[in-house]
Amino acid sequence: MFENRMPRYEILSQESMATLTLGWRRIVSEIGIEFMSPWAIDLLREAGQSVEDNNVKFDPDWVLKQCALAPREFNLRARNPKNNVHIGGNSMVFGGVYGPPFVREGDVRRDATFNDYENFCKLSQSFDSLDSVGGVVCEPNDLSLDSRHLDMAYAAATLTDKFFMGNVVTAENAKDVIKIAEIIHGGRQVIVETPALISLVNCNSPLRWDDRMLDSLREYVLASQPVVVTPFLLMGAMSPVTIPATLAQQIAEALTGIALAQTLNPGCPIVFGSFLSNIDMQSGSPQFGTPESGIGLLCTGQIARSLNLPFRGGGGLNSSQTVDAQSAYQTMMTMMPTFLSGTNWVMHTAGWLEGGLVSCYEKFVLDVEILQSLMIEFTPLEFNVASLAFDAHLEVGHGGHFLGAAHTMERFRDCFYRPFLTNSDNFERWTRLGARDSKALATEIYKKKLEDYVAPEMDAGIRQELDEFVAMRKSQLD
Amino acid sequence: MFENRMPRYEILSQESMATLTLGWRRIVSEIGIEFMSPWAIDLLREAGQSVEDNNVKFDPDWVLKQCALAPREFNLRARNPKNNVHIGGNSMVFGGVYGPPFVREGDVRRDATFNDYENFCKLSQSFDSLDSVGGVVCEPNDLSLDSRHLDMAYAAATLTDKFFMGNVVTAENAKDVIKIAEIIHGGRQVIVETPALISLVNCNSPLRWDDRMLDSLREYVLASQPVVVTPFLLMGAMSPVTIPATLAQQIAEALTGIALAQTLNPGCPIVFGSFLSNIDMQSGSPQFGTPESGIGLLCTGQIARSLNLPFRGGGGLNSSQTVDAQSAYQTMMTMMPTFLSGTNWVMHTAGWLEGGLVSCYEKFVLDVEILQSLMIEFTPLEFNVASLAFDAHLEVGHGGHFLGAAHTMERFRDCFYRPFLTNSDNFERWTRLGARDSKALATEIYKKKLEDYVAPEMDAGIRQELDEFVAMRKSQLD
Repeated sequence: MFENRMPRYEILSQESMATLTLGWRRIVSEIGIEFMSPWAIDLLREAGQSVEDNNVKFDPDWVLKQCALAPREFNLRARNPKNNVHIGGNSMVFGGVYGPPFVREGDVRRDATFNDYENFCKLSQSFDSLDSVGGVVCEPNDLSLDSRHLDMAYAAATLTDKFFMGNVVTAENAKDVIKIAEIIHGGRQVIVETPALISLVNCNSPLRWDDRMLDSLREYVLASQPVVVTPFLLMGAMSPVTIPATLAQQIAEALTGIALAQTLNPGCPIVFGSFLSNIDMQSGSPQFGTPESGIGLLCTGQIARSLNLPFRGGGGLNSSQTVDAQSAYQTMMTMMPTFLSGTNWVMHTAGWLEGGLVSCYEKFVLDVEILQSLMIEFTPLEFNVASLAFDAHLEVGHGGHFLGAAHTMERFRDCFYRPFLTNSDNFERWTRLGARDSKALATEIYKKKLEDYVAPEMDAGIRQELDEFVAMRKSQLD
Repeated sequence: MFENRMPRYEILSQESMATLTLGWRRIVSEIGIEFMSPWAIDLLREAGQSVEDNNVKFDPDWVLKQCALAPREFNLRARNPKNNVHIGGNSMVFGGVYGPPFVREGDVRRDATFNDYENFCKLSQSFDSLDSVGGVVCEPNDLSLDSRHLDMAYAAATLTDKFFMGNVVTAENAKDVIKIAEIIHGGRQVIVETPALISLVNCNSPLRWDDRMLDSLREYVLASQPVVVTPFLLMGAMSPVTIPATLAQQIAEALTGIALAQTLNPGCPIVFGSFLSNIDMQSGSPQFGTPESGIGLLCTGQIARSLNLPFRGGGGLNSSQTVDAQSAYQTMMTMMPTFLSGTNWVMHTAGWLEGGLVSCYEKFVLDVEILQSLMIEFTPLEFNVASLAFDAHLEVGHGGHFLGAAHTMERFRDCFYRPFLTNSDNFERWTRLGARDSKALATEIYKKKLEDYVAPEMDAGIRQELDEFVAMRKSQLD
């Protein structure tokens, strides 16, 4: 797990923070937030908030008081203890893309299948820098809609020994995935003590929490599994076109969702979520990797820290159709602020293409290279008199070179990041080897990784219990 | 000209800065720096430094005293006053790639020609976000080696009305370019008062200033034209493999060059230069856009500011052979720290490919898109109660959309950065329009820009004087 011990890049003044505070307080108290599940309305009414139909007008101080019940940081257990992670503080935890119905491999774009889902599980397991496959790394369109959550959780639980995300399509799905976590971790009490699932709950922005999301949230929160309470904000569509207005809305939506969760189960681990970009005002298309989304992410980190909440955001977002230069500069336009803001839980780290409609094999590999480079860039330098290498200067002198210096020979293996994809061959060698661009190299790498994949071990008894549970539930659902 | 009013991202502690101070002071005083021009040795001896053959051991306090004579900031005049720039402070000034012997257009890589040189001048003129074509935007290999500096300066002076860089191949070349600047700006006194040329002087690192570079430096400095005093550091070859050691060497080399310049002409404008990356320790190839180079750039900015000197660094550096994803993520790995460190003079902003061996048309256009996106990302937000758009929330309410809101309609034209290359078409539209990746789109854009190019006006008398001078000198040199 990566710890970001570099400084945070904070761009909001105290005055700006005060303006945002004014903004979200007015939204929650004067306009209110809609909650489409009756149990949520009842709970908030009982807690003294002002309810009219599905709309709740909040006392902002009560919202803050509830949010203060959430832990600043928490641990998340993986099947293999060495893959346990910590969410919050300096920790940054990385998972794959989430949600795409399509996949792209090379020049072929097609419906995603369960075979693709399994492949992305295997790739996630193969790269140490990824902490999780995430959740819906692609939609297994060839499986039954009613039971594919079981297949996905089963694949993530068996093909990886890292943590994975809960399903949020229905409360029943959530219960199933919680049961799977109980089986592989050794019972309910174990995962209540240290949670094993983290689940994405999106707001139907602006200012509405839908029933299916709320009902899923309820299951996870009652089982003490963290949810990522995430306003879904494409500026110009789901929020105003000014970033301050969008940030105020984001706080209003996230904090009211978090306050609800803390009312359900005080002290339950929770994450302040952000998914903030903008549309193209000419075409209405969503855009990712924009400067505005980068600014939003920097601000979000600062806001979440001021609220003592771990936060989610960023990733390798882009609008590109293929693994071209645009896909990479937009990814960097998001990933660099992801690190600068010290994002705690980073979804969509690897594989995202086409505005999130596509899980791409080549992009997955390329994104891991970017991730690992940034991990090096955000590792503080060791500074001491030895690091000045004065003896190397004495040895090499004027106009010489350091290639064979003793200082170099001692350190050459690990002094610099060693890329596995990035190529610096000269033109002649590059041409001789087939003039492969980074997309072509990525194809070779992901294929090799899948060939070399070794499944992590699992206790036979646990495996049997898991198999039986999944078979039993599938027979009920299909 | 862009002003970066965002915070600087500084990663060196006071202890680290003190370690670096220890480091460079030991290098200049105990090992010394070689100066291969007799005039430089004489000047430094007269100034009381300890000379043995070509090596000079410095009193570090004297070095600092001389460097303190340099202005913190200065202006640079362009032929068109609206293109004047300021070097230092919050200003960031951007020029094209410098030095490549080859060009790439599409899938063709070939020797660069003067026609290419002119084309890159035209492209630089066409993009408002570029402040200069730079200097040797590519080598015009089809021209005479002895006089091509005249052709290049002539092209930059007539095809653009922006400032351009001086030639540093010989002192004679430098004199010619200074004369060209005098002609187009109205005489020596005008450019002495406000300089018109900025020139790149590289160190033959480690610890040696070569004669041709020094002799060029001398001409520019005596004419009060700023030089960019630049250690040329590929860690592992020209400097040790530890970043602190390389930073100490960079300070030692830059400050001794600057001290020499300030001894020649006290108060002359000058720039602390940085060109810092690393080699691949397996192959020995130079690598660009590495995490180590990003860290180096962040540190360099902090160091230059502590010395009250404007600084140069960064740009769109990468090791890629083609305009692929790697070329873009490496460019961003450099350009983002370029902005985070508030780099004052950014060479190699546009067109760099293949470790600087290639000026690429498509990359040039792509880099301008990246540049413009980052200019937006590094523009502070306007924060006030109006920016919270509370009325828009009242208008849209719960679960609606902001596409037609009054607040949106008032701002939709310029609320977000409007890319000229970045594409967010959906898959169907993208396929219908030819499934062009960003390289293909860049080809179309640069061709259109060249077609649409309009030469800036020039006074007929100045033009005649310039023509005559260049013709006269070419008849002498060829």
